[in-house]
Amino acid sequence: MKNLKCEIICVGTELLLGDILNTNSTFLTKELAEIGVSVYYHTVVGDNFDRIVCSIENAFKRGMNLVITSGGLGPTDDDITKEACAKYFGKELILDENVVNHISKILKCEKEFLSDANLKQAYVPKDSKVVINNFGTAPIIIQNVDDKMIINLPGPLRELYPMFNDYIKPYLENLTSEKYYSEFLRVVGIGEGEINKDLTDLFSNENPTLAPYVGDDELVLRITAKSSDESSGKILINDFKKKVYERVGKFIYAEGRQPIEDLLLSELLKRGFKISFVESCTGGMVSSRFVNASGSSSCLNESYVTYSNESKINNIGVYKEIINKFGAVSFETAEAMVKGLWEKTGADVCISVTGVAGPCESEGKPAGLVYIGLKILNDIYVKECKFSGDRKRVREKSSFEALRYAYSILKNL
Amino acid sequence: MKNLKCEIICVGTELLLGDILNTNSTFLTKELAEIGVSVYYHTVVGDNFDRIVCSIENAFKRGMNLVITSGGLGPTDDDITKEACAKYFGKELILDENVVNHISKILKCEKEFLSDANLKQAYVPKDSKVVINNFGTAPIIIQNVDDKMIINLPGPLRELYPMFNDYIKPYLENLTSEKYYSEFLRVVGIGEGEINKDLTDLFSNENPTLAPYVGDDELVLRITAKSSDESSGKILINDFKKKVYERVGKFIYAEGRQPIEDLLLSELLKRGFKISFVESCTGGMVSSRFVNASGSSSCLNESYVTYSNESKINNIGVYKEIINKFGAVSFETAEAMVKGLWEKTGADVCISVTGVAGPCESEGKPAGLVYIGLKILNDIYVKECKFSGDRKRVREKSSFEALRYAYSILKNL
Repeated sequence: MKNLKCEIICVGTELLLGDILNTNSTFLTKELAEIGVSVYYHTVVGDNFDRIVCSIENAFKRGMNLVITSGGLGPTDDDITKEACAKYFGKELILDENVVNHISKILKCEKEFLSDANLKQAYVPKDSKVVINNFGTAPIIIQNVDDKMIINLPGPLRELYPMFNDYIKPYLENLTSEKYYSEFLRVVGIGEGEINKDLTDLFSNENPTLAPYVGDDELVLRITAKSSDESSGKILINDFKKKVYERVGKFIYAEGRQPIEDLLLSELLKRGFKISFVESCTGGMVSSRFVNASGSSSCLNESYVTYSNESKINNIGVYKEIINKFGAVSFETAEAMVKGLWEKTGADVCISVTGVAGPCESEGKPAGLVYIGLKILNDIYVKECKFSGDRKRVREKSSFEALRYAYSILKNL
Repeated sequence: MKNLKCEIICVGTELLLGDILNTNSTFLTKELAEIGVSVYYHTVVGDNFDRIVCSIENAFKRGMNLVITSGGLGPTDDDITKEACAKYFGKELILDENVVNHISKILKCEKEFLSDANLKQAYVPKDSKVVINNFGTAPIIIQNVDDKMIINLPGPLRELYPMFNDYIKPYLENLTSEKYYSEFLRVVGIGEGEINKDLTDLFSNENPTLAPYVGDDELVLRITAKSSDESSGKILINDFKKKVYERVGKFIYAEGRQPIEDLLLSELLKRGFKISFVESCTGGMVSSRFVNASGSSSCLNESYVTYSNESKINNIGVYKEIINKFGAVSFETAEAMVKGLWEKTGADVCISVTGVAGPCESEGKPAGLVYIGLKILNDIYVKECKFSGDRKRVREKSSFEALRYAYSILKNL
């Protein structure tokens, strides 16, 4: 039951060379805000023992009671975050057998053959709480001394993200007196500026709060209620949600945070439907993204990347005349692709994508112009999209929209 | 001619809410490294007067002689960076007529009609050097007192970027005597722990320095030389690079920072080769990743996602008997897939991937077991891999390794 004042310290010389963006701070800050932990400072420091210790001292000196570090937990000599934190609290490092076993399992290497570098990761400060990292070898370490807490998280986002969400977030939530409950409304077809205009007064509401944020693929509205227990939090959220729906309901296509591929898969599974993809500019990205969903194999037999015109003609039977007359990037070709795919595969849901990924225009059509074809049972839909961004971004947006479009239509069938 | 030790302080509560990435720090750090200014710390602090002053005090206390701030120079009441910096040096703010004229011009508003908020931007600390901002209203301010320098830059990247490059970078370059040069060696097939063992003494070398860091797909060794000019920097790096190659040369598959798909594409283009992919567990990810490379269309006609056994049999002619006898995830199936793909497409380079992405085992084979087949002209190669991580990670590692494997073999052909 305390008021947590947090400084995030990211450790890594590579962050001080400008090679990579500090996404960990952003991620942690956002997640901490959700559970009512106030973040007052971010610090980045290189792999230097004295400077790491100095940063920790400094954080507590300026009134923080929680320091969360990321990075510097690896096996090499320049990974020294844990060592610096132990030093700060005057704790020695001791070998943790559970961590040794875990590392041995992860590396598929018998304990007695682990190198000194590997074993280094199994040393933890005395009296610390150790959380085994399910996504890597470096354990998460929590030290709590005299009302000062340090939590060491691994640097790679793919380890930090799930471990924070599954273990550290609930752990911290238990320490704070008020609970925060959030729900997410996912919006498509309206810009941040417009939504801001439509919801201005709601954005300044005190409890629940409403905040827009731009996700990788879509605009998300987060409603967060502060309350002493879950049921009253939910009531607050539900009443408020109604108001949001009244204003912008037609732009909300889903709630929650499940990836779009999981949403689509569950609609397919409900109906026992098969799906198939034929892709040009996305080059396999739509199919690959669908395969992200665990269990997708029961709905997907096959997909095609028909990047060249010949491949569109030979592999899925698009008439040469259609391509010649309308171009490979056209409403008509997207339609012919999805029809051809259906004739080839018989899948209940067929999706085609053809467009100009860029960076240059193609056939006189601008980069970012993309057509998405969709055949669900006997109905065919084709959608024209104009995406901004570089080549990769155009392809990512196309892939998301192809899956989102199929999901929205299928859901309301 | 002095040794600049810099802390970057980004000011803005929005950065502490996790809504936006701190791209300014990354940009500045990279640019500063190029001119030999060492950045020791990044700090992010909210729009709070006391905490900004505290951060500046702290930077100088921990040995910095240069603080670069970004943000908090706007017209509103919560923009207080300049005020906090003036306070730190005990300087009063005075109205700068040049800035007033500039603001009046930018806002297309006569001087006498400028609001107090607008005029606030024209107040500068006494004795400071003021640089007119060609891309906005907030001037850039340089304060230099007793060997301590503070430079205030605007927050928006579209102002910060050109003003830093055009004015501040040359200004600082004149003050420093040394330049930094970096090269990158990309490593595969050896862990971070092992490489550490092999290179321990080199990691503690002073100039050039050697540092390992784990990228998304691979381990990268960065060599950075400090020297007075480029040619002597290159000589330092080359001599040192030889030592690294002597120890771990067989694990270095490439230099530089180009994405693997670009490296592979350039090898294909050199030889006028076509490429094609047939994918099972990766579900289109290898093909999609190759398409990331701009210009890939001249080498890729088509690819197949053969997710189900039927699709492997019907679409690319894998014999049912092979799958029945050895399983879909096997050396033999990967080989049959790549042969079938070649018969179908005639591509000079054919790549197949079949594996268990997980999370569960399949056909009694463990998650993470992946076979990569490769046919280059008349030669066939098949590689067995065991990847750790979740479903997505296994698929990402498989995709990278498929492209990397093809690149390494093709390059040495």
